[in-house]
Amino acid sequence: MSVTERMRELGLELPEVVPPVADYVPAKVHGDLVYTSGQLPMVSGALPATGKVGDGDGLVPADDAKGYARQSALNAVAAAAAAAGGLDRLTGVLKVTGFVASVPAFTGQPGVINGASELLGEIFGDVGRHARSAVGVPVLPLDSPVEVEVVFSVR
Amino acid sequence: MSVTERMRELGLELPEVVPPVADYVPAKVHGDLVYTSGQLPMVSGALPATGKVGDGDGLVPADDAKGYARQSALNAVAAAAAAAGGLDRLTGVLKVTGFVASVPAFTGQPGVINGASELLGEIFGDVGRHARSAVGVPVLPLDSPVEVEVVFSVR
Amino acid sequence: MSVTERMRELGLELPEVVPPVADYVPAKVHGDLVYTSGQLPMVSGALPATGKVGDGDGLVPADDAKGYARQSALNAVAAAAAAAGGLDRLTGVLKVTGFVASVPAFTGQPGVINGASELLGEIFGDVGRHARSAVGVPVLPLDSPVEVEVVFSVR
Repeated sequence: MSVTERMRELGLELPEVVPPVADYVPAKVHGDLVYTSGQLPMVSGALPATGKVGDGDGLVPADDAKGYARQSALNAVAAAAAAAGGLDRLTGVLKVTGFVASVPAFTGQPGVINGASELLGEIFGDVGRHARSAVGVPVLPLDSPVEVEVVFSVR
Repeated sequence: MSVTERMRELGLELPEVVPPVADYVPAKVHGDLVYTSGQLPMVSGALPATGKVGDGDGLVPADDAKGYARQSALNAVAAAAAAAGGLDRLTGVLKVTGFVASVPAFTGQPGVINGASELLGEIFGDVGRHARSAVGVPVLPLDSPVEVEVVFSVR
Repeated sequence: MSVTERMRELGLELPEVVPPVADYVPAKVHGDLVYTSGQLPMVSGALPATGKVGDGDGLVPADDAKGYARQSALNAVAAAAAAAGGLDRLTGVLKVTGFVASVPAFTGQPGVINGASELLGEIFGDVGRHARSAVGVPVLPLDSPVEVEVVFSVR
């Protein structure tokens, strides 16, 4: 089954590529690799939430952040597909790096970035299994709670 | 001398691969590269210490953190070797990224991540020389003091 | 026009390669890729400023930080050129990762790292367009306000 068919089966729609917020491109192809830029969880051009992830008043709950990581990964798929010349040119996922804007007491970054990893697993199956780093950071661009970058392989 | 022989000579034993704490794989091979996941300094399945690195009560001393970076790099070698089909398939080290959970006053990240770089130099010699970034972060998964990811070359 | 000619036209001089502050190399070539180490904005061996970026007393202003990101990228070009055997061996820019030492209220990391992206665009033109991540961190080596690493392609 092609990646396009798999996404249709999952009821997933490829979002518009998020325009870079600065002087770079959403994704760059080199040989059989595509590097995506760090993707924020933009939906129709706006962040669904801002702030730091953690437990407590005024913080973004980890469960919500997991959803934002999923959206960031979906945006990464869109960016990579556009750069590669189509969704079905993507042949696998090599590496995910997930940054979680975290208060210093929050140590659940892996659970948050699972939102990205699970989405990539659903879409790509076995070839979507990837190496991954998840780290806490104090703050991200536009006060986004998460940022996800992906290295894909392409044909 | 093979990498296996070199490790034996150094009295280093390859640890068990640390199972991912979430939905990803310890390392991924693509072409002649292996990307490892961010490795924590797990020893027999447990973190030897938690917390932030810095000078002062309740903080992890930089010297201890250097040892944890060494352990993280050893775990990265184990992860890469398992993914590549054996230690002697690893032909060199390209890039190390070291994250140090740091209080904002602590600026000695390079010394901490030297624990990883020195270990890789001992094992791989000249081909172990690598590009590297070391950065401070406020917090890491499971409150680990360090996290290290490595890109190796493979045959 | 060669990269060397382009830099001359821009009035840019390639700085000396910044010696690593620890046990690694400034850049590593593998196949047609060069990975640079994280570059600080060193000028003649010294940081032009230290501290965290943000608005307020005692903080590094974002505009200044943008200039430091530009200098870091210039140092990355120098590191990559030396490793690749000359400036004109560099054929493009694939990926930039920019770390900005940030107070938690500062969310302008993309504007800061534009200093790096613009410099690479000036030097490399179309082939200098790159994927990019910009993130905040609490502290960087030597208390540098920024750190930039780059993946270049080489012939």
